Amino acid sequence: MESTTKITILHNALIVTMDSELRVFENGAIVFDGDKITDIGKSDNILRRHRASDVTLHDLNGQFVLPGFVNTHVHTSQQLGRGIADDVDLITWLHGRIWPYESHMTEEDSFISTLLCGIELIHSGVTCFAEAGGQYVSGMAKAVELLGLRACLTKSIMDFGEGLPDLWSSQTTDQCIQSQKELYEKHHDTAEGRIRVWLGIRQILNSTDRLLLETRDLARELNTGIHMHIAEISYENQFVVDSRKVDHGTVTHLKKIDFLQSNLLAAHCVWVNDNEIGYLSRAGVKVSHCPAAAMRMLGFAPVRKMIDAGVCVSLGTDGAPSNNRMSIVDEMYLASLINKGHEVFTTGTTDPTALSAEVVFRMATIDGAKTVLWDNEIGSLEVGKKADIVIIDPCSWTMAPIHDCISSLVYSMRTENIISVICNGKWIMKDKKILNVDEKEIILQAKKASKELLERAGISIPTRMKMI
Amino acid sequence: MESTTKITILHNALIVTMDSELRVFENGAIVFDGDKITDIGKSDNILRRHRASDVTLHDLNGQFVLPGFVNTHVHTSQQLGRGIADDVDLITWLHGRIWPYESHMTEEDSFISTLLCGIELIHSGVTCFAEAGGQYVSGMAKAVELLGLRACLTKSIMDFGEGLPDLWSSQTTDQCIQSQKELYEKHHDTAEGRIRVWLGIRQILNSTDRLLLETRDLARELNTGIHMHIAEISYENQFVVDSRKVDHGTVTHLKKIDFLQSNLLAAHCVWVNDNEIGYLSRAGVKVSHCPAAAMRMLGFAPVRKMIDAGVCVSLGTDGAPSNNRMSIVDEMYLASLINKGHEVFTTGTTDPTALSAEVVFRMATIDGAKTVLWDNEIGSLEVGKKADIVIIDPCSWTMAPIHDCISSLVYSMRTENIISVICNGKWIMKDKKILNVDEKEIILQAKKASKELLERAGISIPTRMKMI
Repeated sequence: MESTTKITILHNALIVTMDSELRVFENGAIVFDGDKITDIGKSDNILRRHRASDVTLHDLNGQFVLPGFVNTHVHTSQQLGRGIADDVDLITWLHGRIWPYESHMTEEDSFISTLLCGIELIHSGVTCFAEAGGQYVSGMAKAVELLGLRACLTKSIMDFGEGLPDLWSSQTTDQCIQSQKELYEKHHDTAEGRIRVWLGIRQILNSTDRLLLETRDLARELNTGIHMHIAEISYENQFVVDSRKVDHGTVTHLKKIDFLQSNLLAAHCVWVNDNEIGYLSRAGVKVSHCPAAAMRMLGFAPVRKMIDAGVCVSLGTDGAPSNNRMSIVDEMYLASLINKGHEVFTTGTTDPTALSAEVVFRMATIDGAKTVLWDNEIGSLEVGKKADIVIIDPCSWTMAPIHDCISSLVYSMRTENIISVICNGKWIMKDKKILNVDEKEIILQAKKASKELLERAGISIPTRMKMI
Repeated sequence: MESTTKITILHNALIVTMDSELRVFENGAIVFDGDKITDIGKSDNILRRHRASDVTLHDLNGQFVLPGFVNTHVHTSQQLGRGIADDVDLITWLHGRIWPYESHMTEEDSFISTLLCGIELIHSGVTCFAEAGGQYVSGMAKAVELLGLRACLTKSIMDFGEGLPDLWSSQTTDQCIQSQKELYEKHHDTAEGRIRVWLGIRQILNSTDRLLLETRDLARELNTGIHMHIAEISYENQFVVDSRKVDHGTVTHLKKIDFLQSNLLAAHCVWVNDNEIGYLSRAGVKVSHCPAAAMRMLGFAPVRKMIDAGVCVSLGTDGAPSNNRMSIVDEMYLASLINKGHEVFTTGTTDPTALSAEVVFRMATIDGAKTVLWDNEIGSLEVGKKADIVIIDPCSWTMAPIHDCISSLVYSMRTENIISVICNGKWIMKDKKILNVDEKEIILQAKKASKELLERAGISIPTRMKMI
């Protein structure tokens, strides 16, 4: 039986702290009391210091302890739509699959979808995520509270744009802003402080400048962040050049109207030029790089250039119909690979030194925390911060032998190495078992709900082989 | 207890056959007797037909049954070197890490390395692989026999090239050819026919034309294949242009000397132009595309163009120091993603329809079998073929919900979905447990052997963070 003491010590572990000195304790220990880390160091010192205390001790036998990963761009509402839009062109993707799917969703669907997505996030070592924007923040919030995760939730708003489903196109700018305020009041700082509400802008193709500026002002007033898809596809830039009369694209226009701020989380930023990288850097805008979705749908973001220019770049999975795997573990692997390969197209040869393992690991941890404006409390394992912790088993066929522990985490680790996850001082997965919900039951509910949703939305997926 | 009958029926499964009609049986069953598939179809028909037989029945409860994957380019000897060359430039990679590592290896190291690699291959659903070329075929063969896998083994030979480790540079062309013959005689068609011996050429930078031509002739005489790294890096083409006086690169030269044949397995083929793609196609050369290694070290192969030109392209993982994950499951995901992304650089935008899931799945199965010249017996589930079978559990947080079963296998499946593996009619992994060797024990042996090998070779890996 679990002890009821509230002080826990994990010891005999390799601890990657991601603190400012990048300390890694071999045979280290970490202590947390309630939701906060109270001590960290070498196991023998820690055990000596806490000898007299009433503590729960966990001998990790050489397992690795990491800060919980932060997924800075994920559409939890799209989880039920995994596989509905594979290998189709962008127009079919959006008009034939995603819009019908999202616009036929209920709040209950959103709840089940976020539960299923959350299970995948936890299995992938994520303790905090930034919702990329769905329709039902209440459904998401209910799921996040239940799962024990930490999240910045947003509703995706749109006050403009052709071809939108009826339900969405009827929203005025004032209604958009008003609904954001209401969601903030209802859900911000709930679930023991694990849930924050951000403001969401879908993309410039669906936003008037008035919506952008009022959102900026509201975020300032509420002291929260704004999550927006920016410079995703080249057509977007062309649209902005044509309609907003600027010389390049979305980032240039957002600079011009003074929308770029340090509380802006810009997802993707694939189609940005050097000037625009400078604008992002000087304004302190945070960028979420989503390697898999970018390769599949968008293009190759200039990640190395952005990081070299001082932009804080973190990692996101995007949504299930854009990627299929909601795994920051896989995104670390991909981020490093594609940015090494990307150099072929700039220098004529790959650069195997580009985006090194330690840079990528930073993107998934402390820079993820900075991106969601929460690095004062999460993103590294330090005294005073929240106990958001991942335990991994490196002694397996996926990782052995280990000659370079950081590169092993980035290049070799797979989700099956993630053993346990602690968020806000509470175990939410232990020995691969999700603790707060019944995983099997949610998978069954998700299958049923997604089947019904696709029927309601009139989406049918062609078969690829001869089904008998 | 397992029954002793030799007829096995797997039923109540979704069976992806990859036969010429691409049939997929929903609620299907497959029967194998000894090493051969004897029946396949809908479960009710199969069970009725075999009602009177003495059979072992496995109700798979809706799990998926697939042909065993074929990994067409893997350096099993490099498994102990996982993580020794991450994020370093190519010169350091080769001269500072890989050559010292490989040239200090013993036959026992090769045995342990192949065991460890084989465990990872089995967990990843691979039943057959093409060794890319190491030094000790005897060590590899012993491991393959023990694990129960199927393989085309090769020794990597070199009779030319500057800067090679002493051990290798002293080999004459005649010695190279002679050693190939001896290995063939000793190991070909051993392990109940699971092991075949191929001829190996490392790369053109280390081969005289005489070695190439005598290898070609010997392969013809022995009726076996040749495995060679071809057009890996742009420098290679430049070297060939300078030294062989041809106008483009390796493939052009190999065409000129009449080396391109249908029994040639050309690994990588990253730096090939349209003419060269034509040469490969017309000669029936098979190509192994290794997505992860290519992105990291080599560049983007023109995979779509090669397939459109009729070249048989399959998937390989390459070796652990080039990729880290020896997983065809991940390579399927990557192959599709990077080839969709690659279109950005040819057309200005990604093409999400490029390299569709069914094409990628073919690369990992039947086209893998064609690549290793074994498609008369493996690569699809058909009556008369060998029982090389993978069973996967799709009912998990990694894959649910499934709206498109083939794309789910390519984009969502992870190695943790691979439950059981059958090779040559024998279970080699059951419920995730490797049956023929002690996985934990081999991991321990591999840790020890690799540590000693790195010490002998004088390889030390710098740390990336502050180790305490």
